[in-house]
Amino acid sequence: MDTEKYSNGPCPVGRGLTYVGDAWSMLILRDAGGGMTRFDQFQKNLGIAPNILTRRLTALVEGGLLERHRYSQHPPRDEYLLTEAGRDFLPVLFAFGAWGARHFGDAPVSHLVEKSSGASVEAIVVDRATGAPLSGLDLRIVQPGA
Amino acid sequence: MDTEKYSNGPCPVGRGLTYVGDAWSMLILRDAGGGMTRFDQFQKNLGIAPNILTRRLTALVEGGLLERHRYSQHPPRDEYLLTEAGRDFLPVLFAFGAWGARHFGDAPVSHLVEKSSGASVEAIVVDRATGAPLSGLDLRIVQPGA
Repeated sequence: MDTEKYSNGPCPVGRGLTYVGDAWSMLILRDAGGGMTRFDQFQKNLGIAPNILTRRLTALVEGGLLERHRYSQHPPRDEYLLTEAGRDFLPVLFAFGAWGARHFGDAPVSHLVEKSSGASVEAIVVDRATGAPLSGLDLRIVQPGA
Repeated sequence: MDTEKYSNGPCPVGRGLTYVGDAWSMLILRDAGGGMTRFDQFQKNLGIAPNILTRRLTALVEGGLLERHRYSQHPPRDEYLLTEAGRDFLPVLFAFGAWGARHFGDAPVSHLVEKSSGASVEAIVVDRATGAPLSGLDLRIVQPGA
């Protein structure tokens, strides 16, 4: 799709979609967040065609969400590590997953726990300053310069 | 893309991506959240080809995120309203937008305010029970039945 149609606008959702605007990219970031780093791992877990995986990994590297790191010279082998921006995307994915579990979770779904305590974690989107859930707020979008 | 590859798994992110797994769908939901209801409004704002918009709107209706409502019989005209699941997706989009603004916001971006108070709102993903930002937690994914 023609990302120029929305990527240059003032909306930060459109801006973000320029970099992560398809399901494969989100699933690659999800798996990277789960500790996967190598082409074969992503390919096996996602069942994605190699040429598409190559394209998506390259785009995520160019977008600054993954970093390519050569871990073997002979034979040449790269691994893919989350950058700070890529790691910062994981909470968004968890909020996305919580929404998926709420509305399409009739079959059993995986869930999040905190590693040390084992406590269940449910992602929810709130206002940073007040802690109020965004679902309960009446919001308006203000254009830059308005 | 072949959504069957991830939609049947236990991951609620994959489950959600079956319904909202592309940029256009997310932008249509964004605009519906901003009050747009009609085909022409979406088309004009997004600069999307009519046949693609028709396909996306139909998929969002079939997925239960939008509801089609005939507002005129002669001529026949439909409008598209967010369902509860569609409305519940908006906070996820705002978290996505906040991430976009943090990392790709060098050019001016729009921002959220609460309607009544006019106070700026910044979407952040936290644990519902403790209010702890997910970015600061060490998390693990537990498979169903584990």
